[in-house]
Amino acid sequence: MEQVTQTKGVTPVPVRIGVDLGGTNIAVGLVDDGCNLLAKASVPTRAGRPFGEIVDDMAGAVQDLVKEQGLSLHDCTGVGVGVPGTCDGNTGTVCFAPNLFWKDVPLRDALHTRLGVPVHISNDANCAALGEQLTGAAKGYGSVICITLGTGVGGGIILDGRLFEGNRAMGAEVGHMVIDPDGPLCGCGRHGCFEAFASSTALIRQTRELMEREPDSGLEAFLKADGTVSGRTAFLAARAGNEAGARLVKQYVRYLGIGVTNLINVFMPEAVLIGGGISGEGEYLLTPLRRYVKEHVYGGNRAPEVAILKATLGNDAGIIGAAMLR
Amino acid sequence: MEQVTQTKGVTPVPVRIGVDLGGTNIAVGLVDDGCNLLAKASVPTRAGRPFGEIVDDMAGAVQDLVKEQGLSLHDCTGVGVGVPGTCDGNTGTVCFAPNLFWKDVPLRDALHTRLGVPVHISNDANCAALGEQLTGAAKGYGSVICITLGTGVGGGIILDGRLFEGNRAMGAEVGHMVIDPDGPLCGCGRHGCFEAFASSTALIRQTRELMEREPDSGLEAFLKADGTVSGRTAFLAARAGNEAGARLVKQYVRYLGIGVTNLINVFMPEAVLIGGGISGEGEYLLTPLRRYVKEHVYGGNRAPEVAILKATLGNDAGIIGAAMLR
Repeated sequence: MEQVTQTKGVTPVPVRIGVDLGGTNIAVGLVDDGCNLLAKASVPTRAGRPFGEIVDDMAGAVQDLVKEQGLSLHDCTGVGVGVPGTCDGNTGTVCFAPNLFWKDVPLRDALHTRLGVPVHISNDANCAALGEQLTGAAKGYGSVICITLGTGVGGGIILDGRLFEGNRAMGAEVGHMVIDPDGPLCGCGRHGCFEAFASSTALIRQTRELMEREPDSGLEAFLKADGTVSGRTAFLAARAGNEAGARLVKQYVRYLGIGVTNLINVFMPEAVLIGGGISGEGEYLLTPLRRYVKEHVYGGNRAPEVAILKATLGNDAGIIGAAMLR
Repeated sequence: MEQVTQTKGVTPVPVRIGVDLGGTNIAVGLVDDGCNLLAKASVPTRAGRPFGEIVDDMAGAVQDLVKEQGLSLHDCTGVGVGVPGTCDGNTGTVCFAPNLFWKDVPLRDALHTRLGVPVHISNDANCAALGEQLTGAAKGYGSVICITLGTGVGGGIILDGRLFEGNRAMGAEVGHMVIDPDGPLCGCGRHGCFEAFASSTALIRQTRELMEREPDSGLEAFLKADGTVSGRTAFLAARAGNEAGARLVKQYVRYLGIGVTNLINVFMPEAVLIGGGISGEGEYLLTPLRRYVKEHVYGGNRAPEVAILKATLGNDAGIIGAAMLR
């Protein structure tokens, strides 16, 4: 165990184990049946290594954390893993996880062989959605759409209090709705996906393009220390009264609003949860987003109120949700 | 009872009653627990009359059909009504049904008062989806998205074998996903909804616009007898080798494909069912649609196969589905 970040007193048994497998770190946690994160730790992923080595380290991190808490694997009812990619829920394989360079790897069986406890796997955005609904910002809402605005646009869908994953757990790709067929090329090969407009990657591209078109925009005052554009540049500029920044944010909120409204019209959830890096803008993002949705939702004033909230658990959501997979 | 269209032998009890409330006709049917339509009849809606008169006729049609089958309302476990509009599943009111000129009318209570049996109401596209999944083209599929290509684009969603309606039964508005924000104005007030590209109304508009732009297109040879454009004009022309017709159909399939692929990426259902007037084109529509989806679905070859099928029950789907509401 290279790093233990949190430990809370004596651990009641049985516990569940959640793993948030990221491109940078493997975060593992012990979670009780009340969805409390009892202890967590992480080891580096070192993506690019052979599949078996990463699974070895994942199993090792789980065993170390369990041992450190004075427990054994017999005290654990199961392990859940959130994976940054598409999983086949039937076979327990990871179909495609680009950041790990994985294609069609038998993660569930490989981890089960090493640990001897039941293993469940799912997409990391699904796990985060489940965590937020069980014990985070969306607690108490039975139907929730979680949208993660990060490098991509991830989605997690909770219906009737349960994770909805689609056939073979391969649905919930809410970032891959085309919202403008003449829009920018998306990583998935289509043009104009929600993700190609509303991810932080997209906002960075939009900011760069505007800076090129309008060299006098004043946006360069809001770059990172190293002179590069980030997903915060446009927001920092807009908050400081920069007109170009305000235009970028307005356009970004419009695209985000189109995608969110589409999902509301289809699901009519009780809540929409916004997570990921850009959700850090808080009310500066959410207030205009709520206004957009209210003006555009199907049914207008007759539509039920949908709570639009900021995710609150951060990285813990993925660990807790993974632990609660079944 | 003005018209009895079908009667099949002795009726076993108990039965359920399904009502498909349309802008033109009120179709009522007796359905057994095996989802068999035992008898049906219809009376004219005469939309525009006061709410109470239409409910009186609906109740009268139910009572007449039940009596004619040698039964009484005591033999009926309940009545379900499919409504051409948005319903609030909590209150049993019809929020908005433009073709009936209804806004916020208490349909469930009004019909219950007249018949004394439990009443359920839902959107007509939801009922049709349920009917098709229980006993039509989608029988045996647990998760199905039904898309009705008619005057509008209706949607019905079946997940885990059950109708998914969203909060207060106001979701499943799959026609109201924006797929191009610069597209034509939709009846809902947004621009570029799926419905504004893929309804028969949209195809008629697309055909008319092309005929105006290209007076030598040759499309006028495929008009209706009265000289007007229909949802079939482009398809008739394309089938006959007309180049402009082929372009219209290609463009229509592309828009339909965008909407269908979006829904597949979000739901990853086992089947997508295409109904409504334009589904009458059969394989001429479905074969290129399947090809589009295969080329564009998220996950490519790794995505599970989604069956794309033509709805088969026609108007009976709505009666059967309504009867099976609960």
